[in-house]
Amino acid sequence: MDLKKESLALHKGNRGKLEIKSKVQIKDYKDLSIAYSPGVAAPCTEIKGNLDLVYEYTNKGNMVAVVTDGSAVLGLGNIGAQAGLPVMEGKAILFKTFADIDAIPICLKSQEIEDIISTVRNISPTFGGINLEDISAPRCFEIEERLRKELDIPVFHDDQHGTAVVVLAAIINSLKIVDKKKDNISIVINGAGAAGISIAKLLMEDGFKNIIICNRKGILEYDDSSLDRYKKEIAKITNPKKVKGGLKKALRNADIFIGVSTSNILVKEDIENMNKDPIILAMANPNPEIMPEDAKIAGARIIGTGRSDYPNQVNNVLAFPGIFKGALNVRARDINEEMKLAAAYAISSAIKEEELNEENILPNIFDKTVVDKIAKAVSKAAKETGMARI
Amino acid sequence: MDLKKESLALHKGNRGKLEIKSKVQIKDYKDLSIAYSPGVAAPCTEIKGNLDLVYEYTNKGNMVAVVTDGSAVLGLGNIGAQAGLPVMEGKAILFKTFADIDAIPICLKSQEIEDIISTVRNISPTFGGINLEDISAPRCFEIEERLRKELDIPVFHDDQHGTAVVVLAAIINSLKIVDKKKDNISIVINGAGAAGISIAKLLMEDGFKNIIICNRKGILEYDDSSLDRYKKEIAKITNPKKVKGGLKKALRNADIFIGVSTSNILVKEDIENMNKDPIILAMANPNPEIMPEDAKIAGARIIGTGRSDYPNQVNNVLAFPGIFKGALNVRARDINEEMKLAAAYAISSAIKEEELNEENILPNIFDKTVVDKIAKAVSKAAKETGMARI
Repeated sequence: MDLKKESLALHKGNRGKLEIKSKVQIKDYKDLSIAYSPGVAAPCTEIKGNLDLVYEYTNKGNMVAVVTDGSAVLGLGNIGAQAGLPVMEGKAILFKTFADIDAIPICLKSQEIEDIISTVRNISPTFGGINLEDISAPRCFEIEERLRKELDIPVFHDDQHGTAVVVLAAIINSLKIVDKKKDNISIVINGAGAAGISIAKLLMEDGFKNIIICNRKGILEYDDSSLDRYKKEIAKITNPKKVKGGLKKALRNADIFIGVSTSNILVKEDIENMNKDPIILAMANPNPEIMPEDAKIAGARIIGTGRSDYPNQVNNVLAFPGIFKGALNVRARDINEEMKLAAAYAISSAIKEEELNEENILPNIFDKTVVDKIAKAVSKAAKETGMARI
Repeated sequence: MDLKKESLALHKGNRGKLEIKSKVQIKDYKDLSIAYSPGVAAPCTEIKGNLDLVYEYTNKGNMVAVVTDGSAVLGLGNIGAQAGLPVMEGKAILFKTFADIDAIPICLKSQEIEDIISTVRNISPTFGGINLEDISAPRCFEIEERLRKELDIPVFHDDQHGTAVVVLAAIINSLKIVDKKKDNISIVINGAGAAGISIAKLLMEDGFKNIIICNRKGILEYDDSSLDRYKKEIAKITNPKKVKGGLKKALRNADIFIGVSTSNILVKEDIENMNKDPIILAMANPNPEIMPEDAKIAGARIIGTGRSDYPNQVNNVLAFPGIFKGALNVRARDINEEMKLAAAYAISSAIKEEELNEENILPNIFDKTVVDKIAKAVSKAAKETGMARI
C-alpha cells in the first residue's frame, strides 16, 4: 500500500477529519427558545451564581484543546501552525475514538513563549483540559510549567508525559519478565529532549535510581555550560555514579536502553556490552535506533519500538485517552505525578500475567477496556492527592 | 411551559449542546497509520509546501470560532466567560443546524482589548472565520476593526452586522408594502450601541440618507464631548437636518422606528406623531420598546420584534448562517459591506411578492432554502469585490 497516497486521499476526501455535531435538535421556535435565546439565559444565570455549574450545564468538562505552535511536528520539525493541523485533527479524533472526549485542534500563529501562554490562558474557560502537542524543547517545559501553575484545569504535554507513562508501563512489565528489581538496575536514555527528560523524571518518581541520559555529545554532565536549564537540572539528579563518556560507555553493564533519539545509532556491540537480558525500547521515528532483528541477534531479550509492524509498540495512544478521561471524570485541577504513575501501573496491569511475554509487554491499543482501567486509576489518584473537584 | 426549567433540564441532561465527531473510522493499525502517524505526515508536508492546501486537507475551511469575552451576553450584561458558554454553544449549534458549519465556542478569560485581539490572532490558523459575539461596545468596534485588518479570514461581529443585515432586509420589504422609496424617508434608530451604529452604517451604505440616532440622552450630537469616538463618528454622518432634542422630537414625521434599546420606552403618542404607515421594528429583549398590540392601536402599519411569538421576528439566525456559508464557500478573506448588502437583499427576496404582507416581511428561519440563497449571493459579492480566494 502507498501510505502517502492513501493518507492524502483520506484527508482530501473528508476535508479534514472532525466535525462539530449538535447534541440537541432545533426544528422549531420552541426548540430554539430552549436551547438558545431566551431560555439559555437560565443556565447562564446559574453558572454566573456558581462557576462550578459550568461543568453541569456545558460541555466544558468533556472538552480538550489540542494546542500546538507547529514547532516540532512528528519528525517533520518546525512546519508551523497550518501544516501541523492534520496532526492535531488526528489527535483530536483519537481522543474521541479512544475515550469519547471532545477535543479540538488549536494551532497557534505565534511561537513566542509569552504569546502561547497568554493565548492558552485566555481560551481556557471553554475547556476541561489542555493537551500541549508538538511544541519544541526547551520551550515546551516553561510553557507547561507556567500554565500548570496558572490554570485550574490540567495542562499536559503529551510528547513528554504520554511517552513517559507508556515507557514506564513497558519497563514495569519487562522487569517482571526478566525478573529484575528496580532498585539495582541501570537505565540509559538516549535523547535529552522533551520525551527523554520526562521519562527520566517519571522513572525516578517511581523509584528508579541509576539513570544516565545521553544526547548527541554523550552523557549529560551538569557542569556543561552549553546545556539549557532543563538539561542541567536533569543532569544534576541523574547519573549518580558520575560516569563520563559517550553512549557506548553509558551502556556498558546497563539493563535497559530507552531511545528517543534518531534512527540507527545503536549497534549490536552496544547491546552485547549490556547486562544479561537487555531491554531495548528503541522509539525513534520512523525507524528505531536499531532494527528489532539486529537487536535480537545481539542478545536483546525484550525489544519495543514506536512501530505497529513489530511487537511491543510503545505508543502514546495507550496513555493519553485514559489519563485525560480519568482527569476529566473528577474535574481534576491538574495531572500530577501520582496520576501519571497510576496510569502507568494501570496500563502495565491491563495485561494478564499469563499473557505477558517478551513479545507482549503492553496491552493492545484497540482493547477498549484499557482506557477505563487507566481512567479509574487516574481518578483515584487525583482524589487521593486532592486534585479532584468531585 | 416553564422555559427556564426546560432549558436547565436540556442543558444539564446533555452536559452541553455540542460534541466533536470523527469523520473517519479508526478501528485498526492501518486506519491509525493513515489518519495519524506516520501517514498524516503527507498532508502536513503538502500544506507546508503550499499553505492554501490547508483548505483541502483539513477542516479549517468549514470551521468557525464563536468568540466572546462574556462582557455583554444576551440581556444579562457582563457575566463573564464561563457563564457565557451556554450562549456560545447555542450559537455554535445554530451554525451547524442552519448551515452545516462546524463552530466551536471560545470564551475568553480576559476582557482587555489587546488580549482579545492577540488571542484571536493566535488561534486564527485553525479557523476559516471568526464570529465575535456578545462583546460590549465600544470595545467591540476596535476589536473587530483591528482583527479584520490583521487577519486573512472573515471576522464578523454578529451582534452588529447580523442584526443590521436582517433589519435592512425587513426595511426593504416593509417599504414595498407601504410603497415608499428609500430616498425620501426618515428613519429613527433608538440605541447607539453596537447594533444601532451598525444598522445606521449599513442603511447608509444602501443609500438611506435621513437617519437619526438616539441614545438615553436623546438625539446624538457630534459635538457632545461625552460621546466615545464611534458614537461621534456616526453622529457626524447621520442626522443631516441637525435636529436637536429627544426621541419624541426625532420621531415626529419619521417613517421608520428601529429600536435596539430597552423595553417599553415607546408610547402610543410617539407612533401617532410619525408619518403615515409607520414601520416599527422594536427589538429590545425580552420585551420590545412597545408591545405590538399597543403599536397597532397607535396606527403602526408594520410591526416587527425580536420575539418568536409575534409576527415578523427580526432574528440574526436569518443572516449569519448564510453569510458565513457564503464566505466560507469561496474561502473569503473578509466579509465586506457588499457581502452584507447582498445578504440583506437575498433575505428580502426569499419571500415571494404574493406572500409578502404586513405580518410577513421576513422569511421563516426554518425555511432551509433561505440559507443557500444568502450563501450564493454572498459568495457572488465576495468574488465581485475580490474577497474570494476561489
